[in-house]
Amino acid sequence: MRTIIVGFLGCGNIGCGVWKLLNEFKEDLLHRSGVEFSIKKILVRDIAKKRDEVVPRHLLTTNPADVTDDPEIEMVLEFMGGETPATQYMLRALQMGKTVVTANKMALALNWHLLQSAAEKHNAGLYYEAAVCGAIPVIRTTIDSLQSNRIEEIMGIVNGTTNYILTRMSQEGSDYADVLRDAQRLGLAEPDPTSDVEGYDAAYKISILSSLAFHARVPFDVVYRQGISQIETVDIAYGKELGYTLKLLAIAKRQGNVIDARVHPTFIPDSHPLTSVNGSFNAIFLHGHACDDMMLFGRGAGSAPTASAVVSDMLYAASRETPRHPTFRNNNELAEGLTVTDDWHCSFYLRLSASDRPGIMAHITTCLGNEGISIRNLMQRDAVDGRAQIVLITHDAGECAVRNAVEAINGPDVQVESMIRVEGN
Amino acid sequence: MRTIIVGFLGCGNIGCGVWKLLNEFKEDLLHRSGVEFSIKKILVRDIAKKRDEVVPRHLLTTNPADVTDDPEIEMVLEFMGGETPATQYMLRALQMGKTVVTANKMALALNWHLLQSAAEKHNAGLYYEAAVCGAIPVIRTTIDSLQSNRIEEIMGIVNGTTNYILTRMSQEGSDYADVLRDAQRLGLAEPDPTSDVEGYDAAYKISILSSLAFHARVPFDVVYRQGISQIETVDIAYGKELGYTLKLLAIAKRQGNVIDARVHPTFIPDSHPLTSVNGSFNAIFLHGHACDDMMLFGRGAGSAPTASAVVSDMLYAASRETPRHPTFRNNNELAEGLTVTDDWHCSFYLRLSASDRPGIMAHITTCLGNEGISIRNLMQRDAVDGRAQIVLITHDAGECAVRNAVEAINGPDVQVESMIRVEGN
Repeated sequence: MRTIIVGFLGCGNIGCGVWKLLNEFKEDLLHRSGVEFSIKKILVRDIAKKRDEVVPRHLLTTNPADVTDDPEIEMVLEFMGGETPATQYMLRALQMGKTVVTANKMALALNWHLLQSAAEKHNAGLYYEAAVCGAIPVIRTTIDSLQSNRIEEIMGIVNGTTNYILTRMSQEGSDYADVLRDAQRLGLAEPDPTSDVEGYDAAYKISILSSLAFHARVPFDVVYRQGISQIETVDIAYGKELGYTLKLLAIAKRQGNVIDARVHPTFIPDSHPLTSVNGSFNAIFLHGHACDDMMLFGRGAGSAPTASAVVSDMLYAASRETPRHPTFRNNNELAEGLTVTDDWHCSFYLRLSASDRPGIMAHITTCLGNEGISIRNLMQRDAVDGRAQIVLITHDAGECAVRNAVEAINGPDVQVESMIRVEGN
Repeated sequence: MRTIIVGFLGCGNIGCGVWKLLNEFKEDLLHRSGVEFSIKKILVRDIAKKRDEVVPRHLLTTNPADVTDDPEIEMVLEFMGGETPATQYMLRALQMGKTVVTANKMALALNWHLLQSAAEKHNAGLYYEAAVCGAIPVIRTTIDSLQSNRIEEIMGIVNGTTNYILTRMSQEGSDYADVLRDAQRLGLAEPDPTSDVEGYDAAYKISILSSLAFHARVPFDVVYRQGISQIETVDIAYGKELGYTLKLLAIAKRQGNVIDARVHPTFIPDSHPLTSVNGSFNAIFLHGHACDDMMLFGRGAGSAPTASAVVSDMLYAASRETPRHPTFRNNNELAEGLTVTDDWHCSFYLRLSASDRPGIMAHITTCLGNEGISIRNLMQRDAVDGRAQIVLITHDAGECAVRNAVEAINGPDVQVESMIRVEGN
């Protein structure tokens, strides 16, 4: 039996979940791993605050050095969230040679180069399964089980808040603003929902995940990002009629040395495995050159599922004699020899409003044809107030070509009212 | 850089897939792991046989000792399949202190106790990700990522052949015998399909997987097993009407110290994530006390996907300084203190044929009620030749109670024509 002395940075929802799992499951963990975790200090903002778990007051401190600098503490668990001061505290712990386990996707995505460099320099472990998709072992699968693969594509539903909102908009035909308000009331969306609904959270995660999958750093700022706040119910309904479901996807693809990484609302065909991922569940769909298609599905957030991933990382760290680091360079630039394209290829959904008169459809199809874009599905509805509603889905096309076509189509007689990318066809 | 000398036992479909992956992906593997695998000897039955990959003739041998006894060979990969002589060769390699990587679920499930004991005794690694669900990292997830969980339930679609047959029967309304013949013609079912269609293959896999998940040996012979050869299209169609899909599931559940492990045709509600797993795909759905629900989905067979898992195990073994063994006793008995029940609880689908006259329904419902079984759905169809078709789905009930009720129901006026278990309600 080995005892590992542990310190917490933060003790909110996730910290309390880890506290609970470590205590309630202590015997089993010891039996399975031969390791006992002993919690020595917990950094909190407010010692008097009421917590879900009864954490003894003498463990609490407001001085970060009590955790990061205590030579007895071997492993530091970070649950503060946010970029600052979590990054600084983690850097300090790594510099002191301690293993760091974190659930903080923001600090990790933005300061990956600093954290990984510090970990390597000081031969300290840095683990973050809980930072991407909660309980789902997507990091471990990528860096361990799929080492034997060239991963060519990742598509993930990695944000529970937006998935909940889109699921309800689709099932009930409700408006975005109404469902968001409801989600906020239920505690499923933050009072300031920007990070979730504008896709920042998903972009942090795909930056981390695609870096590991492609064995090449994909910095956060090269990830294209579009959120769900402009989504209209009418497009979800038209998509449904055509056999498509709308999801906020985090996507990363690699073809040779060209990468694209992006977060945007995406239609996927109803037959695609990601379609059935509803509510607060997360899922990662990926394609490797040997393993072919694969999907991992589960709880992407919540106190217990996140604790499951944190404690799994603790056991993993404890079982290794030397820490594990990525094999690619950890600076904040895109890896040498790689390029990021914003001219990715997929299908596109377009909704147009047009004057109800001859020649309009010819104009639309000519503009598309001029850019080499062909049509897969087309639907025209009866005109309302003299304006016809036209919905179409293209075959595979380039983003730039579609943007050019949209510009050429738009005029006094016809307007492209929405453009949504389609994947998985 | 480290070179690991490797020997193959067998070089059929999977062996050739591994050969190809190790050769084509050599540079990447070396870059990622610092390890180079060098293949020294390959045991085959027939040296002259034509293979998918061009394997140099001087590597081939018909003498197993050239692989198992060569002191230079550090890692032995077993792709022979079948219990004998694969088990003996693997035992020999383990006794010689070599790491063994195998894709052989049969040898492993039937001789787990011998193989694991030999591995422990001789401090040799024994890895078998490829033995359960091909490329899907279900072994690694169970023993690594979910160590922090008490896994309470596993339900898997673990056999591609039966899933292909049931998918086509459901989509086309075809008969079992016709689809089986087609599957055999396409190479998706063996000339003797018994191992797949009677559920042996699935039972091997759930024995292995549940042992690891429950941290307690669940021997193959305690797994209840029923295949798909008696399935009638009419039941698939009635199930569909009621919102259920038929799958051959491998199931293992644990409540306290009571375990059940079983393979049988199972209806699952259309909203369940396993429903969308069609054709030759595999999936494992599981529930842990911390991680909650999780599903892993992917290719369960095939040359490249299986090779993906084998090479992943090779890298895993190469990265460990000491081999990893289960923490529970490896004899061939059910773990002490555990009991296996054959009185599991789930819902049940019953199809009855009854004389079309008063009192029949009262008789049926009384027999069910006497056993404490209540009805969830009921459907009666117009009588044909004076026999009414009645289909019902019960609420949660015990297997023994349902068997008793069926016995009480059966008589000259009414016959239970099929009974199919329902999970995931």
